[in-house]
Amino acid sequence: MRVLTGIQPSGDLHIGNYFGSIKQMVDAQKENDTFAFIANYHAMTSVSDGKRLAELTMQSATDFLALGIDPKVATFWVQSDVKEVLELYWALSSFTPMGLLERAHSYKDKTAKGIAANHSLFSYPVLMAADILLYSPDIIPVGKDQIQHVEIARDIAIKFNNEYGDIFKLPTFKIEENVATVPGIDGQKMSKSYNNTVNIFGEEKKQLKTIKKIVTENVPMEAPKEYESCNVYNMAKLFLNENECKELQERYKRGGEGHGHFKLYLHDVIWEYFKPYREKRAYYQEHQDEVRDILDLGATKAKEIALPMIEKIRTVTGIRY
Amino acid sequence: MRVLTGIQPSGDLHIGNYFGSIKQMVDAQKENDTFAFIANYHAMTSVSDGKRLAELTMQSATDFLALGIDPKVATFWVQSDVKEVLELYWALSSFTPMGLLERAHSYKDKTAKGIAANHSLFSYPVLMAADILLYSPDIIPVGKDQIQHVEIARDIAIKFNNEYGDIFKLPTFKIEENVATVPGIDGQKMSKSYNNTVNIFGEEKKQLKTIKKIVTENVPMEAPKEYESCNVYNMAKLFLNENECKELQERYKRGGEGHGHFKLYLHDVIWEYFKPYREKRAYYQEHQDEVRDILDLGATKAKEIALPMIEKIRTVTGIRY
Repeated sequence: MRVLTGIQPSGDLHIGNYFGSIKQMVDAQKENDTFAFIANYHAMTSVSDGKRLAELTMQSATDFLALGIDPKVATFWVQSDVKEVLELYWALSSFTPMGLLERAHSYKDKTAKGIAANHSLFSYPVLMAADILLYSPDIIPVGKDQIQHVEIARDIAIKFNNEYGDIFKLPTFKIEENVATVPGIDGQKMSKSYNNTVNIFGEEKKQLKTIKKIVTENVPMEAPKEYESCNVYNMAKLFLNENECKELQERYKRGGEGHGHFKLYLHDVIWEYFKPYREKRAYYQEHQDEVRDILDLGATKAKEIALPMIEKIRTVTGIRY
Repeated sequence: MRVLTGIQPSGDLHIGNYFGSIKQMVDAQKENDTFAFIANYHAMTSVSDGKRLAELTMQSATDFLALGIDPKVATFWVQSDVKEVLELYWALSSFTPMGLLERAHSYKDKTAKGIAANHSLFSYPVLMAADILLYSPDIIPVGKDQIQHVEIARDIAIKFNNEYGDIFKLPTFKIEENVATVPGIDGQKMSKSYNNTVNIFGEEKKQLKTIKKIVTENVPMEAPKEYESCNVYNMAKLFLNENECKELQERYKRGGEGHGHFKLYLHDVIWEYFKPYREKRAYYQEHQDEVRDILDLGATKAKEIALPMIEKIRTVTGIRY
């Protein structure tokens, strides 16, 4: 089963990203035919600083490799290294009614927030449709905000197939069911836009400082404490096994320790959990050429799927003359 | 001076096309650095029959070579053979305010006529901007309906340059001044949409039949006739030198001949005029592989300009990571 994921190179990853999607992808990469690409063309809709975008792309690649994407198993590449996606994007554009794009929530939401209403932002769902349809995936794991984009891709694919025959596999999205909700330091869902994140690869001092800011209830040190409603506990349990969870619960119930102690413990747990990833990341940061080689290889593998598809597209649309 | 022309592969060429733009391009190709491409990506906005589009592309190439585009002098290629144009199209999209496209007359006109409001039609001016900016032309010869598109390209280029420095030469359009107005067989401007054309490469019988339909005034055979207002004369004079014009005027003034005679004469003149082109066309039709080779060579020459430009774009935007 081919599972396709687009990765926005949006900077520092946080543990919400990790438990929300990265871990699932990495854990399942052996059962699935995992296709994951860094969506640097898409990122151009919001990043106009070229140097920054190039850095973000490499950072994203480095981070995902560190977190366990295995290029021997998965197909992992940078979007712009398979330029065929742009030709499909153009071919699909003639099968994309303007109304379909005008109804897209994401465009409306972004422009409402003051992001400039440029053509790239508007046509984003068409490029995303090309990203999907070029690789004939079975499943696109999505967050709720991306469901409509997969539906748009599906609508475009149906229109195209109606004209040219059975070219595209209709894409299906999947909302991850077993995803733990990761609370941010303020108790809301962890998200960059709420500024409540704990980064995966931050410095140790910074991480400790962030974790000390986690909002907790005000209870005397000696008193027993609620763990179920505690943001510290709820963050910690993501990293703990059953026994470790129970031990932590006991400490809450027992009293005699303050939230400060639990925070120190949480910090240690997180720091320890990501230690091997941090080491792997340090390795790849020292060996950026190796990262580039991996991405090159990924693009080559992606093209094995993309090229036969684009050849078909060129023939049916008459681009090939 | 680089002069860039996009050629719509829209089927049979007529003498309005010839005297309106083709002849100027061919006549000037030695003084100018002529860049001419067959806009097959653009044609996808209106042609969804792939087989037909492929045929139109080859027909267009064959016709233009027959009419004198000299691939040794000019750079003559098919748009989709320089795929870099699509990457520039995407890069420009983030510098294209939606308002700029929403104000485009051509889109509004076409949808008003009932052409489906698809994304490709809407975003057409952005691809056209990429067509232009990729090749840094000095001049774009245009019809009046295309002025706005060059202005849009200019606006996009300015926005892009503001962000990334002096990357694009700002394009300038030129409306051909010395273009004769070519009357159609009904006296209106010759145009496919008026169904009043005389084709360049039609069959002889068909051409005669068409010319016999030219609208003329009803005057007895013996009477002297007006030539200045006569559609037959006005079409003929495009093909005649000064002396031949005067002779024809005399025949009008003298009387004794009907418009039917003048039509036969006009038919002969046109048929004779295009004889060498017809022969060249027959040659290329017999040697379509040669046409393909010429187009390949053209794409190679076009890439000599396009590749350094797209490299620059990749660097400044951060597509190159």
